[in-house]
Amino acid sequence: MTDVDVKQKILAANMAAAGSLRQRFLKERTLTVNLISSPGSGKTTLLEATIARLSSRYTIGGLEGDIATERDAERLRKMGIPARQILTGGACHLDARQVEKALSDEGSALSALDFLFIENVGNLICPTSYDLGEDFKVVLLSVAEGDDKPFKYPAIFSRAAVTLITKSDLLPHVDFDVAAVTEQVRTLNPAANVAVLSSRTGEGLEAWFALLETRLGEKRGENP
Amino acid sequence: MTDVDVKQKILAANMAAAGSLRQRFLKERTLTVNLISSPGSGKTTLLEATIARLSSRYTIGGLEGDIATERDAERLRKMGIPARQILTGGACHLDARQVEKALSDEGSALSALDFLFIENVGNLICPTSYDLGEDFKVVLLSVAEGDDKPFKYPAIFSRAAVTLITKSDLLPHVDFDVAAVTEQVRTLNPAANVAVLSSRTGEGLEAWFALLETRLGEKRGENP
Repeated sequence: MTDVDVKQKILAANMAAAGSLRQRFLKERTLTVNLISSPGSGKTTLLEATIARLSSRYTIGGLEGDIATERDAERLRKMGIPARQILTGGACHLDARQVEKALSDEGSALSALDFLFIENVGNLICPTSYDLGEDFKVVLLSVAEGDDKPFKYPAIFSRAAVTLITKSDLLPHVDFDVAAVTEQVRTLNPAANVAVLSSRTGEGLEAWFALLETRLGEKRGENP
Repeated sequence: MTDVDVKQKILAANMAAAGSLRQRFLKERTLTVNLISSPGSGKTTLLEATIARLSSRYTIGGLEGDIATERDAERLRKMGIPARQILTGGACHLDARQVEKALSDEGSALSALDFLFIENVGNLICPTSYDLGEDFKVVLLSVAEGDDKPFKYPAIFSRAAVTLITKSDLLPHVDFDVAAVTEQVRTLNPAANVAVLSSRTGEGLEAWFALLETRLGEKRGENP
């Protein structure tokens, strides 16, 4: 078996598990969002803000992927929602079987949710190829990371339905051209939804919450 | 052949190529530095500052790893040094055979250098396992990425001889505890050299340049 065969075999197994997860999320009417970014782009902080705003009206759960430490799942549990850490050891992405296992663990309390947020391992590359049965992928790019990233990491910006430009409170202190980034993303993915936000100041968060509620309503066939 | 066997076979082939590169760098008396970080931690900007300061006294070359775009090699060539882009397609790290090939390309002008800087693909995880024949690895962590990263990505912080905390000019605008990060790094790697710098303001750059010159002198057996 060649290296390419092995990779294909792994992806095929992942796709089967992702299909089964997608069926489950459809049946349970759960909107599942797969958040992907470099380390330190603000995924966990955005989830904390999202839980603070939406958890009085919706049931929310979280899965946190990391190489090591339980830190992120602890942060979400402190916000009062059920959350599980998935430690990958050395692996640079989550796979669908890890998600299946975390959801089926006894006492996980991660069923029949309104929203399930899956925070992937901090990495702009590897998570891109692994479907987790999500409704859509969200890629985060902080303004501190520079405005050349979509063209340098085209796969994730092509595949994510939503690009969130985060840490906009730092814009006065860095060189970052929001219009140029938006144009790169639209070139790669004309249908992409691009939004600018800061979890620290709250800028742009209402639009993000509205997007989540709209997508949940669409999944449930509700009229807007 | 199992997945683990394939991974072992790939790493063994890489190790052989890295050994041959290390012999070459020893013979040519070139100090080779493998720079690793998340996307947007400031690797290329630090190299621009390094070239500006050292290229009048030393011969310097650059290899730039990216998924896509020639942008980073162009930035280094504009600084007046020979530089080659290595495009990995989708791969999340450079390997030693790609480095060998780039160095042997006709007209690469990347031989008998004083310093060879290899900027790896922006990724805190995958490049860690692939020896490129370098003298040492440098990991960069920008203060915008948060101060929990060494324990979340322990492999690279354990293996890098040098940790550079970059973008220190942003410290007044972010929550980042330099002492806590230094302690995490020292826990993982007691011998690590940890330095704080800003390529934008110049803070800490002299110490970085001095480290490079000292390491080059040591490799050449010169007295300090």
